[in-house]
Amino acid sequence: MSRYWSEGLADLDPYVPGEQPRDQKTYIKLNTNESPYPPSPRVIQAIRDAASSSLRLYPDPTCMALRETIGGKLGLPESRVFAGNGSDEILAFAFAAFFRHPEPLLFPDISYSFYPVYARFFGQNAQPIQTRADFSIPLDEFLVPNAGIALANPNAPTGRGIDPALLLPVLEHNRALGRVVLVDEAYVDFGGTSAAPLVGEFPNLLVVQTLSKSRSLAGLRAGFALGQEELIEGLERVKSSINSYTLDRLALAGAKAALEDEEYFQETRAKIMATRENATRSLRYLGFDVIPSQANFLFASHPEMQASRIYAELKAAGVLVRHFNKPRIENYLRISVGTDEDMSALAARLSAILGRPAP
Amino acid sequence: MSRYWSEGLADLDPYVPGEQPRDQKTYIKLNTNESPYPPSPRVIQAIRDAASSSLRLYPDPTCMALRETIGGKLGLPESRVFAGNGSDEILAFAFAAFFRHPEPLLFPDISYSFYPVYARFFGQNAQPIQTRADFSIPLDEFLVPNAGIALANPNAPTGRGIDPALLLPVLEHNRALGRVVLVDEAYVDFGGTSAAPLVGEFPNLLVVQTLSKSRSLAGLRAGFALGQEELIEGLERVKSSINSYTLDRLALAGAKAALEDEEYFQETRAKIMATRENATRSLRYLGFDVIPSQANFLFASHPEMQASRIYAELKAAGVLVRHFNKPRIENYLRISVGTDEDMSALAARLSAILGRPAP
Repeated sequence: MSRYWSEGLADLDPYVPGEQPRDQKTYIKLNTNESPYPPSPRVIQAIRDAASSSLRLYPDPTCMALRETIGGKLGLPESRVFAGNGSDEILAFAFAAFFRHPEPLLFPDISYSFYPVYARFFGQNAQPIQTRADFSIPLDEFLVPNAGIALANPNAPTGRGIDPALLLPVLEHNRALGRVVLVDEAYVDFGGTSAAPLVGEFPNLLVVQTLSKSRSLAGLRAGFALGQEELIEGLERVKSSINSYTLDRLALAGAKAALEDEEYFQETRAKIMATRENATRSLRYLGFDVIPSQANFLFASHPEMQASRIYAELKAAGVLVRHFNKPRIENYLRISVGTDEDMSALAARLSAILGRPAP
Repeated sequence: MSRYWSEGLADLDPYVPGEQPRDQKTYIKLNTNESPYPPSPRVIQAIRDAASSSLRLYPDPTCMALRETIGGKLGLPESRVFAGNGSDEILAFAFAAFFRHPEPLLFPDISYSFYPVYARFFGQNAQPIQTRADFSIPLDEFLVPNAGIALANPNAPTGRGIDPALLLPVLEHNRALGRVVLVDEAYVDFGGTSAAPLVGEFPNLLVVQTLSKSRSLAGLRAGFALGQEELIEGLERVKSSINSYTLDRLALAGAKAALEDEEYFQETRAKIMATRENATRSLRYLGFDVIPSQANFLFASHPEMQASRIYAELKAAGVLVRHFNKPRIENYLRISVGTDEDMSALAARLSAILGRPAP
């Protein structure tokens, strides 16, 4: 707290990202849902080519070439594509652009923990909707007056996917209200179903994706949103009230190259999904309850040992996973899907920690 | 305007950056205060080295290595340094963190045109203080109750420096009020005097600098702020309410390398200052009134031809400069300092446009 701070700043509860140990080599890092695979070699080449004298010039503030590439892949004109510094930035801009209304903003109580942070920062009242005991989302409870709806599909940190057919009544309801439904598809490339094909039908639908996970580019900061022109313009208005150039020349070049390498993308995401299914079986063999995941992480609890203790013992044994000390999920661990070798090492250490035979 | 927008979004007046023509090679580009020189070769090398498999991992959200480098150069601990995605982002965060109070926020009427945009976006009432006819700033008029003060030194778009001795009463006044003074030093490396040595004395002083101009890195998006710990914490709280990782791994590596190459920095900024003095003489020879500049641009008007016309004729002749269609400065052009060759070409074309002998 400081006397120099704006009113309300001390009351914020900022987001706390997963640990980024400075001595990364000593850990098997399964705590921030990064890809275990490097980005496409074409990304590396594109960045090296862009590391040139042209860095003296501002990047294109409209991100046009990248937006055209994204649109081209998804069958949308660039006017329906927004590009940003990771999906977190786009979510922040969307909360500012669309979710400030008198009614409460709705999102599941168990979801991406940045949503309540954004809402609070932008002064918007939010009403979490309680997920069921199995963390599935009661979508009919969203059919009430609201300032907007944010849904992660697949959801984080549970990994559960939302049946896209169940999204339609929510979209229709909010279209009638004149309120936006934001579908946060950070993890959709690992087996979920994207709502992107619905953009043409629903002027109130904003789909947000990221290159951080399925394109192995958490370190580059690139994400995008899909929506009809008036939503894209809303995002642009917020961006141009904060920072005109949030994507640097290197990120623009690297992101474009990543989207162009379809073959590498398909190969790495398939590997991650296969590893996830094997890891799910291993964790279940070790006695974990594992939520069925459509993401690049698993959400699991063990009936015989507190998650906080497993977290700490894994960390001591050189494996970082994520533990959220929050109601309803304090006994779960979120475990990113690494390589097969990473997951075997995890299983071996869990076997020792739990005193159970290794799978 | 859209029915889906948040209340107030349609009333925003977002910042409009200078033109970034997609066919940049065809223009002599003197419109966005970029450096005419490439970044240090060490920057290029650092970026190429960072373009590796590590891009799969998130960057360090604390930007610690870069902050240590900045602090090391300026004799400050990293706890007094904040790093951001260009100074624009840092300014936005500072407006949110420090300037939301009941009194009006103060800045000169002729200054960086993003200031009123930030104020409006964050819902803060602002009171522009009128600069004198010569665009010098009447600093005694800031000694009134205020929510904070933003001063660009040197000022943009005029290029005029502020005598640092005149800043002291403003800093003391606002220290007593418990309000921040933000000194925006985007252009300070071209002959201005930094307020950075005052950070230890004034807990209400925030100094903001950028690598876009004097480090030839507009395309990389890196800037920093200097202030006592409670101000840095305020900026971190805002950042962690929007986007935890606004600097990607490449920008972190490139910015650090740029700050480490002192020799290249000194060489290029000296060249730009020398070219500026020559260009000032040339413009005056052509009949322009030129404000004395401590920045990498010149602010000039001509008694015989409207600035808007000169702007248009220069653009037709392949030279982009900046014209602000705003009260008091609509008859001025802001001309970035390029290479000697750029400025000679500018003078030749102005000579033709004005029908005056070339300097």
